[in-house]
Amino acid sequence: MAAAASPDDQVVTAAIAVIGNEILSGSVQDENIAYIARGLNEIGIQLREVRVVPDIHQEIADAVNVLRRRWDYVFTTGGIGPTHDDITAEAMGVAFDRKVDYHPEAYARLAAFYEQRGQEFTEGRKRMTLAPEGAELVNNDAMIAPGLKIENVFVLAGVPRIAHAMFEAAKPYLKRGSIVQSRGITTHLMEGDMAERLSAIQDKYPASDIGSYPFYNTPRGNGVKLIVRATDKVLIEEIGDEIRTMIGSLSGEVIEDDRSW
Amino acid sequence: MAAAASPDDQVVTAAIAVIGNEILSGSVQDENIAYIARGLNEIGIQLREVRVVPDIHQEIADAVNVLRRRWDYVFTTGGIGPTHDDITAEAMGVAFDRKVDYHPEAYARLAAFYEQRGQEFTEGRKRMTLAPEGAELVNNDAMIAPGLKIENVFVLAGVPRIAHAMFEAAKPYLKRGSIVQSRGITTHLMEGDMAERLSAIQDKYPASDIGSYPFYNTPRGNGVKLIVRATDKVLIEEIGDEIRTMIGSLSGEVIEDDRSW
Repeated sequence: MAAAASPDDQVVTAAIAVIGNEILSGSVQDENIAYIARGLNEIGIQLREVRVVPDIHQEIADAVNVLRRRWDYVFTTGGIGPTHDDITAEAMGVAFDRKVDYHPEAYARLAAFYEQRGQEFTEGRKRMTLAPEGAELVNNDAMIAPGLKIENVFVLAGVPRIAHAMFEAAKPYLKRGSIVQSRGITTHLMEGDMAERLSAIQDKYPASDIGSYPFYNTPRGNGVKLIVRATDKVLIEEIGDEIRTMIGSLSGEVIEDDRSW
Repeated sequence: MAAAASPDDQVVTAAIAVIGNEILSGSVQDENIAYIARGLNEIGIQLREVRVVPDIHQEIADAVNVLRRRWDYVFTTGGIGPTHDDITAEAMGVAFDRKVDYHPEAYARLAAFYEQRGQEFTEGRKRMTLAPEGAELVNNDAMIAPGLKIENVFVLAGVPRIAHAMFEAAKPYLKRGSIVQSRGITTHLMEGDMAERLSAIQDKYPASDIGSYPFYNTPRGNGVKLIVRATDKVLIEEIGDEIRTMIGSLSGEVIEDDRSW
């Protein structure tokens, strides 16, 4: 099922390219995808694809080139620090076929920052000011080093606290679409007992997206969370009520009913 | 930097296709990528790429077709339950251009299971036995419904407990490669202070992959975890010792030194 859509919807889409050997090796658990996904939702942008790629220039460039042509916005996370494995700015140069050099404004700011702190402005720290020609700086509250905007691509840090701040700083640049709202209805019924009835409800409401997420052996036992997503709250209310009736008709009980608005 | 490799290494690679609107909407935090990544590491298989795609047949098929031709193995997670949004088996039919039908063995087993429990074998539950022609069943300890193996593609559940059990059940089918070991050295030094020295060490040891992961405002304050990865433990020892010496030369302290073996 595609993301819920009505004919009048303003559909704005995005993708994330996670740049990170540390995610692919399992050393680090990603904490940015869900944060960015939820933040995009809140402003009516639909995350449609994520790719996790290794720290290799051409792999990063290839992924970003596919994603930036396919979706309205791309966010990269990771690889913008001072060390040898921080190659995202250079990889963006490959992707956009542009020269990469120290960005004058970022360079001047970081030079002043380290001078004021009495720390050396090392070659590594200078690397944090690398940017493809024509990139805009996206300044943020968490770090003196900026994120980058190159056309529809936003280059963010990998460290979650900084990635999140850089994403917030990128938001003002984004056009907003119709917001997809959600309602989550949880029951102890089993998926297999209601699958046909649920399918009939989904068929009746093509402008919504109904997801079914079972859980097992949790503190509340076994059950299913049904999530209805659509841009039209009235429609979600109607579908949700129909799901509640369906659950009741199977002698089930609704144990939670959460609305996102 | 590519994953660490020596000329004698047996390099075996894999990718994951996460099938899940719930991940793209931020409703659910993925718990399978890191588990599978670490499990693959343990048997010498390198995870090289991850894609998260929505619950749309063609999107799933396209991603799996790219990944299965590029890497030795592909694992899909999600979309194999009884409800209308569980479309992975059908999407595999699209990807492999094969007819999809109830798998006789899985069907017989589930029919017997539900009969024994006095539960109806509903159309939804029957959907859990769908498989493309020629698929093998991958039986597991967590669930009566099996995972699937279609050539080099393994179809796993999305619910973490079941996905993990299905992945364990898939392991005996996998050829094993040279195991990439790791050593993690943590210091309170800042990345910018050691970036050039670290880069020189990386350049000296091309058969290793040195990653630098800063942390901020954690219970142990600020600092960096350096992770050395290679198939050769002796080499890792040597590189690690050189990093320790480098940290000492900058008047830094090693606050943790973890080996994976």
